[in-house]
Amino acid sequence: MSVTEQLATFVTNSRTTDIPPQIYAEAKRAIINYMGCAIGGANEPALDNALDVLLPFTGKATSHVLGRSETCDPLYASLFNGIGSHVHEYDDTIPKNYIHPSIPVASALFAYASANQGSDQAVTGEEFLQAFILGFDIESRIGNAVYPSHYEAGWHITSTTGVFGAAAAIGKLLKLDTKQMVWAFGLAATQAAGIREMFGSMAKSFQPGRAAQNGYTAALLAKNNFTAGEKALEGPRGFATITATEYDLDKAVDQLGEHYELLDNAYKPYACGLVVHPTIDACSQIREMHNIDPATVERIDLRVAPLVLDLCNHKDLKRALQSKYSIYHAAAIGLARGKGGLREFTDEAVADPVLSDLRSRTNAVADESITDDQADVTLTLKSGESIHFFLEASLGNMDRPLSNAQLDDKFIDQATLVLPQAQVDALLAATWEISSCEDVGSIVDLAVHKGD
Amino acid sequence: MSVTEQLATFVTNSRTTDIPPQIYAEAKRAIINYMGCAIGGANEPALDNALDVLLPFTGKATSHVLGRSETCDPLYASLFNGIGSHVHEYDDTIPKNYIHPSIPVASALFAYASANQGSDQAVTGEEFLQAFILGFDIESRIGNAVYPSHYEAGWHITSTTGVFGAAAAIGKLLKLDTKQMVWAFGLAATQAAGIREMFGSMAKSFQPGRAAQNGYTAALLAKNNFTAGEKALEGPRGFATITATEYDLDKAVDQLGEHYELLDNAYKPYACGLVVHPTIDACSQIREMHNIDPATVERIDLRVAPLVLDLCNHKDLKRALQSKYSIYHAAAIGLARGKGGLREFTDEAVADPVLSDLRSRTNAVADESITDDQADVTLTLKSGESIHFFLEASLGNMDRPLSNAQLDDKFIDQATLVLPQAQVDALLAATWEISSCEDVGSIVDLAVHKGD
Repeated sequence: MSVTEQLATFVTNSRTTDIPPQIYAEAKRAIINYMGCAIGGANEPALDNALDVLLPFTGKATSHVLGRSETCDPLYASLFNGIGSHVHEYDDTIPKNYIHPSIPVASALFAYASANQGSDQAVTGEEFLQAFILGFDIESRIGNAVYPSHYEAGWHITSTTGVFGAAAAIGKLLKLDTKQMVWAFGLAATQAAGIREMFGSMAKSFQPGRAAQNGYTAALLAKNNFTAGEKALEGPRGFATITATEYDLDKAVDQLGEHYELLDNAYKPYACGLVVHPTIDACSQIREMHNIDPATVERIDLRVAPLVLDLCNHKDLKRALQSKYSIYHAAAIGLARGKGGLREFTDEAVADPVLSDLRSRTNAVADESITDDQADVTLTLKSGESIHFFLEASLGNMDRPLSNAQLDDKFIDQATLVLPQAQVDALLAATWEISSCEDVGSIVDLAVHKGD
Repeated sequence: MSVTEQLATFVTNSRTTDIPPQIYAEAKRAIINYMGCAIGGANEPALDNALDVLLPFTGKATSHVLGRSETCDPLYASLFNGIGSHVHEYDDTIPKNYIHPSIPVASALFAYASANQGSDQAVTGEEFLQAFILGFDIESRIGNAVYPSHYEAGWHITSTTGVFGAAAAIGKLLKLDTKQMVWAFGLAATQAAGIREMFGSMAKSFQPGRAAQNGYTAALLAKNNFTAGEKALEGPRGFATITATEYDLDKAVDQLGEHYELLDNAYKPYACGLVVHPTIDACSQIREMHNIDPATVERIDLRVAPLVLDLCNHKDLKRALQSKYSIYHAAAIGLARGKGGLREFTDEAVADPVLSDLRSRTNAVADESITDDQADVTLTLKSGESIHFFLEASLGNMDRPLSNAQLDDKFIDQATLVLPQAQVDALLAATWEISSCEDVGSIVDLAVHKGD
């Protein structure tokens, strides 16, 4: 069998009982992280703008958009969910292939579940999680095959592989047979797009959203026997050879059905550039261990990896965006607030006199002996007392995954920007209980903004 | 200015009077050819299938689909028009870059014109032609920059560049400013997709249709200041570097506004593989010059380029598709019918005893002295008389373009498969008169299938 056929067969033949409980547990964590991001990004200008333009073109409004009051058809809901959940770039990442995996797959699945709520095609939590796990797996496996040359060339690997993941997930719910799944992958390959040249603009979050929408469309067409080339991945003019100067399709099927890619997923603890994460983490730990009052701080001395100062040597902050790439702000929020959520990188946070004072007291030097994943902090108090802390490995890495409680905090921190606390609590609880949910459309109901 | 900015500026600044009359005349010929293909393909299974799946997701049904009775929103109409007009692969081609240029641009424009019929945004024929000329130009110029390496790698260049053409054309009608046009090109680059691995399946005609739909969407978003990266073409992770191992962006702006790419367009005279065109042409000319009765033919002897026998050495035909790649069928239809329209490649044509008899009397030998564009035919009649004809250059080439009368014949031959003769005549006349049309939506009205 070709690689395309092997992956299609894997998805169509998979039974819910084939997947170990550990994978379902990790899938729930990914869904919690996804849902928090989707709600947290729901009021961002990129999503407002896309809704403004495209809602007039939506079909029958059967699907809610996460964190919004608008409804639309599930294809557009997939797009809008994708924009909102990716816009803060606070979503999950697979460190080995740089894919933000949950966006394209979960965005399509929640749209599908909402559109089919209360119908014969209503999606149970078990079906949802299975489709999510399989879509995630397909997407990441295809990424493994073409990474790194595909990514380094400039492809936005989250959208180019995400369209396959969304097609697999929706295709599983639509009960495609294997031939149809092969066509769905062909129709995904037909639409695989998204380039890193768009980073820094609204088009960036559009890309994984469009991947969700296009993968969903691919599955619908395949279900109706709309034919496509049957060698989407390995063909001489297929996805791998066209988009990667070097690739290894064996990686796409390595330990297929034995190893699940969800085990390689990581959740971002802080809503900012990765290189300042160790400093936030170290300062947060000092704060917690020593119960620091910011008013007692005389100075903060950082030793950081040279890359950190190359990218983040901004002390005099003018705009919110700059705070995401300031090593001084990182130290300040860690010490004063013990976290780095969305609220720590706003204009208000930049103007906060406590944070401003701490930034001015922070000094940073580059040290080649410090890795990108480490930080060395020496805190000097006005009393003369000195506290030293060396962080060996940063929170959110594969070796130090966020705990479920930390995922809860991250969820609440984001979702309360958009939804009332009581609704946030109910949504969080319902999302953790997704395994036993009889109709996932009911979870989407809890994610709807009810208006002011 | 960057190449992206130069192209955007060219489109936004272009006045109708900047474009020479010769270009408008050629644009009309391209539109005639396009419209005939769109009607001729309107009843094909690929389009039936896509309509079946996607019509339930359409928004407000303001736009007619060419050659159909269905209505939908103009974004989906762009897709459907694109599938129908490309499905027979009988559309136009730019020989220097292999783009089928009219499909993505005209499919979006007719959808836009239909949706805005009778409104303040109604499109006049002059505006329509200008937008078509500019979209065509942008698409082909981007193709020039990345051809041949882009095409040889396996990209379906019609869809990958077509999305830029559709964005430019719709963006012109939406009166984007230059910054917005740059964003529209970014949003086009974000969605540029389509691979040759899909050739031979329904996904093939889906690709340029999706390019029309996505380019239209890009223009709508840009009009609302949905931002995108501003170096869509020349950026280090932009379209050219990612999709072509070798490219020359100077070609995209060479003689910009002086040379129009429409002058490099060609129209396919026969609805079959290009390599058998010279034989159809030669036999058609013999038929016309000598008023041949097929019953009088003893044998036909062909000398053809070696490639022809490599690809088209099929005498015993079982299916309609095979007839498109049979040098024997090519000789038969030329001699018996003097043409190679859609009706010459059906199951009925394959079974026609006159054609079957002529195929059996045809012999072909490869001759390296014959080019792909030539054919040498010796016809022996039962009377013993012998007629020899050597075709130097085949009809439809840049040097032997189809006349307007031949475009009419091609149009009528296709359109009468789907629409009544009187409607075909009215549509043909109205399309030729597009320059003076006050609302191009009225031309689309004439292209609507009224039901049985």
